[in-house]
Amino acid sequence: MTAGKPARNRRSAEQMLVELKRRLREISDLNAAGDVLNWDQATYMPVGGAGVRGRQRAMLNRLAHERAVAPALGRLIDALARYGESLPYDSDDASLIRVARREYQKKIKIPPDHVERATMLCSASYDAWTSARPANDFATMVPYLERTLDLSREYSSYFAPSKHVADPHIDDADANMTTASIRQLFGQLKRQLDPMVHAICEQPAADDSCLRQTFAKAAQFDFARHVAERIGYDLKRGRLDLTHHPFCTRFSAGDVRITTRVNENDLGDALFSTLHEAGHAMYEQGISGAVDGTPLGQGVSAGVHESQSRLWKNVVARSRGFGSIFTHRCNEFLRSSCQTFHLPCSIAPSIRWRDRSFAPTPTK
Amino acid sequence: MTAGKPARNRRSAEQMLVELKRRLREISDLNAAGDVLNWDQATYMPVGGAGVRGRQRAMLNRLAHERAVAPALGRLIDALARYGESLPYDSDDASLIRVARREYQKKIKIPPDHVERATMLCSASYDAWTSARPANDFATMVPYLERTLDLSREYSSYFAPSKHVADPHIDDADANMTTASIRQLFGQLKRQLDPMVHAICEQPAADDSCLRQTFAKAAQFDFARHVAERIGYDLKRGRLDLTHHPFCTRFSAGDVRITTRVNENDLGDALFSTLHEAGHAMYEQGISGAVDGTPLGQGVSAGVHESQSRLWKNVVARSRGFGSIFTHRCNEFLRSSCQTFHLPCSIAPSIRWRDRSFAPTPTK
Repeated sequence: MTAGKPARNRRSAEQMLVELKRRLREISDLNAAGDVLNWDQATYMPVGGAGVRGRQRAMLNRLAHERAVAPALGRLIDALARYGESLPYDSDDASLIRVARREYQKKIKIPPDHVERATMLCSASYDAWTSARPANDFATMVPYLERTLDLSREYSSYFAPSKHVADPHIDDADANMTTASIRQLFGQLKRQLDPMVHAICEQPAADDSCLRQTFAKAAQFDFARHVAERIGYDLKRGRLDLTHHPFCTRFSAGDVRITTRVNENDLGDALFSTLHEAGHAMYEQGISGAVDGTPLGQGVSAGVHESQSRLWKNVVARSRGFGSIFTHRCNEFLRSSCQTFHLPCSIAPSIRWRDRSFAPTPTK
Repeated sequence: MTAGKPARNRRSAEQMLVELKRRLREISDLNAAGDVLNWDQATYMPVGGAGVRGRQRAMLNRLAHERAVAPALGRLIDALARYGESLPYDSDDASLIRVARREYQKKIKIPPDHVERATMLCSASYDAWTSARPANDFATMVPYLERTLDLSREYSSYFAPSKHVADPHIDDADANMTTASIRQLFGQLKRQLDPMVHAICEQPAADDSCLRQTFAKAAQFDFARHVAERIGYDLKRGRLDLTHHPFCTRFSAGDVRITTRVNENDLGDALFSTLHEAGHAMYEQGISGAVDGTPLGQGVSAGVHESQSRLWKNVVARSRGFGSIFTHRCNEFLRSSCQTFHLPCSIAPSIRWRDRSFAPTPTK
């Protein structure tokens, strides 16, 4: 081997890395475009747009999938494997090559037409549900749910044999987790959670009826957005809108949106769901723009994502400190609709309990 | 030739037609997805989304263009030419094959990277303009306009030689029109318009100051939407939103949206621009869903499109009949902000003049 060869190999690897990032960015952009269509469908699309929108989303997802399983992408990832191993394990490039390889190896097993059919069904189910939910009409949803279950089983079949039919889905959400590992984890947690839950249930039930008065919808929405911004959600790189069910969606590092819903008779619905989604969004907004458009430019797993959303919704937003800071601001927002909100002492026990860092010995 | 052969050819042509429509639908869906991203950028996108959004739109437009110039599409169109000619000229299928052929023959001349660069520039120009316009900052826009001119000339160069550099652009908007044919048309119109314009100018200037009071923005917006709906714009298959500049955009036969802008000191701005865009939208909403997703599923030309928008804005909405119907409703909308609007007699002459079917002899 001549002295110049490693340098040439290195240069070539770097060129391949540029090509890998270009390909991954195109996949990411196609998925983001599909996500914009999805957000629009959930927020502002007129009812007439429903059928074709499903087809358009399905097409974008299929195109993204076709690119994600392109043999040329697979060859590029293979060719970069040794280069990736030569880099520090936690470096962006080593991680990118590793994660891209893992995703490729999973996606290559899924036929593009499955992706298209699943997206079509997802879109049609969502549209049906937006009418069925307010009418409390479960029967309408049954065939959609059955079809979803069929497609989920079909998805799992591409990864056969699995120890459990849910394993490929769990692995998508949390890499390398399985039904067995989750059962083990939940078993451990249960042993610690059981005494906590019993201790809580022995307390007098907290009176949170103060949250369940009638509050003007617009004031609730504005207040929820204000609180989300105060805890750190950047509205220059995001926005809050109304949907039937709250969610968080990322189109790029500079555009991570959240949605909420408002229940006129429950202040907690809009407030806590907004803070839950803001937790997801702040996690996504905190990811370096340098890895945007790659598989590293998104939350690492559903588990870590939920840890962020629930931290804000349950630990922060239900604490005494949070209540004492925001009760006054809440009243400022409600004043326009001639309402006020008071944090009553009667919900203090549960709040005090939470402030004690989830100590398993409750205050009696 | 055996007796069975024409039947076999016919069947084969019909199969090819199905394949042609599938390919055209994919192109249409990609363009529609790009249009959703464009609408979102103009309406609700947070500022942080700007840079990447341009890249995402450019990618979708490039993918649509690549499909629009695919050699397999060209072969399909060629193979269907004789079949198309065997059908009645005005039938949907004959028209589709003819129009698809025309579009293919134009688009094949444009390199995909031009499409990508032009979309990127368009997106960046729009973002710059949204800040430059309120600041009345023309200097910022100059380099964007120069670059746009460069790209427009570059576009024309792909169709060289043309008699005039604008001809390829005019032909895109109005098929088979050229600078020369427009000059001839405008020359003819000028001879008829000149006496009309002079007659109008000899009238005392209409006093339309009634439109230029201060009107609450929300009431104006709601009123404009109400009028658009009353004249026939279907809000189940469309919606009205605010943008820096009004436009109409179609994502499918069931989703044709319009936008407007509201000037607190001019009732006419929101009202007339909304009715202008509603004119475009009603034309698009009137197209048969059967040709949706094909080149026939959109307005036939910019000329016909503007004839619709201007008919509603200028002929209908500035007529006495329109004023007498909607003044009362306008006041109902404005009442919430303690305002009323009166149609004064002083603007009657110009209105009466218009009611006389554009007769070139004005009322003195």
